[in-house]
Amino acid sequence: MASPPAPSSELRIDIDRLIDRLAALAEIGAIEGTHGCARLALTDEDRAGRDLVVSWMRDLGLEITIDGIGNVVGVMDGEGDGPPVMTGSHIDTVRTGGRYDGNLGVLAGLEVIETLQSAGVTPARDLAVAFFTDEEGARFPPDMLGSLVYADGMGVEEAHAIVGIDGAVLGEELDRIGYLGAAPLPGQVPHAFVELHVEQGPVLETDGVTIGAVTGVQGISWTEVTVTGQSNHAGTTPMHLRKDPGVVAVRTAAFVRELADDLGAPQVATVGRMELHPNLVNVVPASATFTIDLRHTDNAVLVEAEQRTHAFLAAAAADEGCTVETRSLARFDPVAFDDRVVGTVELAAAAHGHSVMRMPSGAGHDAQMLARVCPTGMVFVPSVDGLSHNPAEYTAPADLEAGANVLLRVMLDLAAT
Amino acid sequence: MASPPAPSSELRIDIDRLIDRLAALAEIGAIEGTHGCARLALTDEDRAGRDLVVSWMRDLGLEITIDGIGNVVGVMDGEGDGPPVMTGSHIDTVRTGGRYDGNLGVLAGLEVIETLQSAGVTPARDLAVAFFTDEEGARFPPDMLGSLVYADGMGVEEAHAIVGIDGAVLGEELDRIGYLGAAPLPGQVPHAFVELHVEQGPVLETDGVTIGAVTGVQGISWTEVTVTGQSNHAGTTPMHLRKDPGVVAVRTAAFVRELADDLGAPQVATVGRMELHPNLVNVVPASATFTIDLRHTDNAVLVEAEQRTHAFLAAAAADEGCTVETRSLARFDPVAFDDRVVGTVELAAAAHGHSVMRMPSGAGHDAQMLARVCPTGMVFVPSVDGLSHNPAEYTAPADLEAGANVLLRVMLDLAAT
Repeated sequence: MASPPAPSSELRIDIDRLIDRLAALAEIGAIEGTHGCARLALTDEDRAGRDLVVSWMRDLGLEITIDGIGNVVGVMDGEGDGPPVMTGSHIDTVRTGGRYDGNLGVLAGLEVIETLQSAGVTPARDLAVAFFTDEEGARFPPDMLGSLVYADGMGVEEAHAIVGIDGAVLGEELDRIGYLGAAPLPGQVPHAFVELHVEQGPVLETDGVTIGAVTGVQGISWTEVTVTGQSNHAGTTPMHLRKDPGVVAVRTAAFVRELADDLGAPQVATVGRMELHPNLVNVVPASATFTIDLRHTDNAVLVEAEQRTHAFLAAAAADEGCTVETRSLARFDPVAFDDRVVGTVELAAAAHGHSVMRMPSGAGHDAQMLARVCPTGMVFVPSVDGLSHNPAEYTAPADLEAGANVLLRVMLDLAAT
Repeated sequence: MASPPAPSSELRIDIDRLIDRLAALAEIGAIEGTHGCARLALTDEDRAGRDLVVSWMRDLGLEITIDGIGNVVGVMDGEGDGPPVMTGSHIDTVRTGGRYDGNLGVLAGLEVIETLQSAGVTPARDLAVAFFTDEEGARFPPDMLGSLVYADGMGVEEAHAIVGIDGAVLGEELDRIGYLGAAPLPGQVPHAFVELHVEQGPVLETDGVTIGAVTGVQGISWTEVTVTGQSNHAGTTPMHLRKDPGVVAVRTAAFVRELADDLGAPQVATVGRMELHPNLVNVVPASATFTIDLRHTDNAVLVEAEQRTHAFLAAAAADEGCTVETRSLARFDPVAFDDRVVGTVELAAAAHGHSVMRMPSGAGHDAQMLARVCPTGMVFVPSVDGLSHNPAEYTAPADLEAGANVLLRVMLDLAAT
C-alpha cells in the first residue's frame, strides 16, 4: 500500500538534480574557458538545447505541445479541468550568455513537477512549464517575441517574416530546426503565470535579501539609428567640409549617457551596437548604424527620454549635414504585475523563512507578455555582482534552491485558487 | 629612313589611351553600380590588377623587377648609365576606392614611356615606373608599406610578419599571389622621384587651379585604441555601477572632432573604425576598439593633438572604471619635398600653359617615402568635389591629360640634370 502524499508545505525541491540539469543544458553552446553559453535563438545550438529540454519533459510524462512560433509547453495533469497554472521562461541566450538567465525558470519548473510526482501529490489544477522562443531578441528583434505572439501581441505571420541580424528569416529558421509546431496561436490563457528568474542586477545582493517579489517590469524602448553622410579621404577633407555620420553617432551615444545621468535612477540608457561603414582607419564613414536602449518604470519619463534623444539626434545630424533614419526595434510600456500574485510570492518566501522584498524588474521578461492575459508575477533570486548577459553570471546554489522552493509553493497556492 | 625624333617640348601624351587603361584596370574589383573599385592589398583582386599592369609593362618592353615586398619596377633604357628618374604610385585601393587614386600615377608613367617610344625619343637617363605594395594600409597597416620598405624605413622580415585586419599574414599573402620577388631591398636609389596623383581634396577645384606643385606631406598619426570594461545586462545595471567601454570610445571620438575644430586648419582628425563587442542592443559592451587618424603639416601641432587625445582618453577611461590599450598603427613626421623638384613641376606646368599653385598634400603618398632617399616631388590634379576613397571619385579628362603631360616634361627635365 502506497504511503499517503506528504503535506504540500513540507515539499522541497532537489537542488542537486536542478543544478545537474542546469549544467547539462549549459554544455550546449558552451563558451570555452567559461561557465557561460551561446545559444542564439533558432540556431543549431538552440535546437540542441530545445531537444534536451523536450526529452526531459517526455521523461516526466508531460503532455507536450509546440505552437507556430516554436513555444514549447509541457503539462502535468491536475485535479481540475480548467486552464493550468503556468510557469516558464526561455532557453535562448545572448552571444555572451550565462547559464541561469532563462534556463533557471524552465528547469526549476521541471523540478517542481518532478518533486510533486515523486511525492505523489496531484495539484488542484493542471501545471504547465513553458519555454518561449527568442526571449533575448539578440538574433531576431524584438525580444520576448515568443511570449508576445503567445499573448496575441503580434500575429504569427508578421513574426515569421522577421529578418535576423545575420539575414536569416525567422519562419525559415523555425522550420529548419524542426520547431514550427501546430498548436494554435494565440496560446491558451493560463489560470495564472509565475516565472522564476535571476535578478540580473545588483539590488538583492546589495540589500542582502534572498527573494524578490517582482512588482512589474520597466518599459523598454529600442531604436536602431542609421546616419548617412559623405564618405571621403580622412587626410584631405578639411573639417568644415565634412559630413561625418560617425560624428553624429558618437555625439548621440555620448548624449544618451548624459541623459540617463540627468534623469537619474531608475532611468537606464545603453548604446550596445555600433557599426561604421566602410569601417576603415583612413576613410570618413559613409554611414553609421547604432542602437539606443532606454528603460524606465514610468512611461512618462521614458517618453521624455525618447523625445530628448530624438531631438538631439536630429540637431546633431543637421549640424553635420547628415540624414537620419530611425527604426523602432521594440517598444513596451512599463508593466504592473497582479498584486495578488505578488503577495502570494511574498507569503511563500516568508513561509520558507527567506528574506523578501518587493522590487521592479530592470529587464524584460516573458512574464510581462503573459501579464497581458492572466494574473502574473515573478520570483527573483540574487545575481552575484549583478552580472548577467555575461559568461560569469552566477547565483549561489542556496539561492537557486530558495527560488525553486518558493516557485513550488506559489504554483500550488495559485492552483488552489 | 626614320624621321628624326620630335623635340621633347612638343611631345604630348595620348589621353584616350590613358583613359582606356584606367578603365580596364578599374574593371578588376569593380564595385557594381559605381565607377569605383575594391582591390585591397594582396587579395585576388590586387593580383589580377598587378598581372594586368605587368602585362602592359611587358608590352612596352620594360625591364621588370619584383622585390621582396612585392613592389614592381619597369625600366626603359636611357642614354646614361646612372640610376633612373623614377615615377610611380600604387594600384591597391581601399574597400570603397575610386579608379584614379594611385592608378593614375602608375598608368600615366606607362603613358609617358609609350609617348617617348612612339616619338623615338631616348631620354638622357633610364626612366622607371613603379607600383608599390599596400599604399592604402586598408588591409595591412601601416599605409605606404611597400615604399617604406623600398626606402629602408622598415625591414622586410618585419613587414612580412604584419597581420591584416582579416587575420592574414602579409608575407604569406605575397607568396600566395605570386608577388614575393627576388630584387634586393632596400631598393635602388633613384636619381629623382616624381609622382602624379589626384589631389583627393577640394583645394585645386575650389581655387580653379589645374596643377598642384606639392611642397610636402602632412604628418600622420594612426592609433588603435582598445577599451575594456564590464559587460552586463543593459536593463538591470544602474548607470552608476557601469563600466561601459563604449561610453569611453564615443566620448573620445566626439572629443577628437572638438580637438580638430579647436586646433583649426590644417589639423584633421577622423575616427573611421569602431567596433563594440559583443555588439548587441541589450548588452553593455565588454570592449570597444576604434582608430584615431590625426594629421598636420607641423609636427609640433601634431604632437600636441596626440597628447591632448591621449590625456582625454585616459581621463575618460578612469572616469568609467575601464582600462585602455593603445597601439600605434602608423606615425610619420611631416615631409618636405625637394625645392628644386617642386620648382621643376611649377615650370613644366607653366610651359604647358596650365595654372599652378604650391600646396601641401593632405594624404600620405609613396613619394614621401622616396623623399627619404632622393630628390622628390609630386604633381596634383583636381578631384571633383574633393571626393576620394569613394567610388564617386572623379577627375576630368582634361585635367588627367594636363597632369600626365606635366609628368612627362618633369621626368625629361629631371633626366637632363
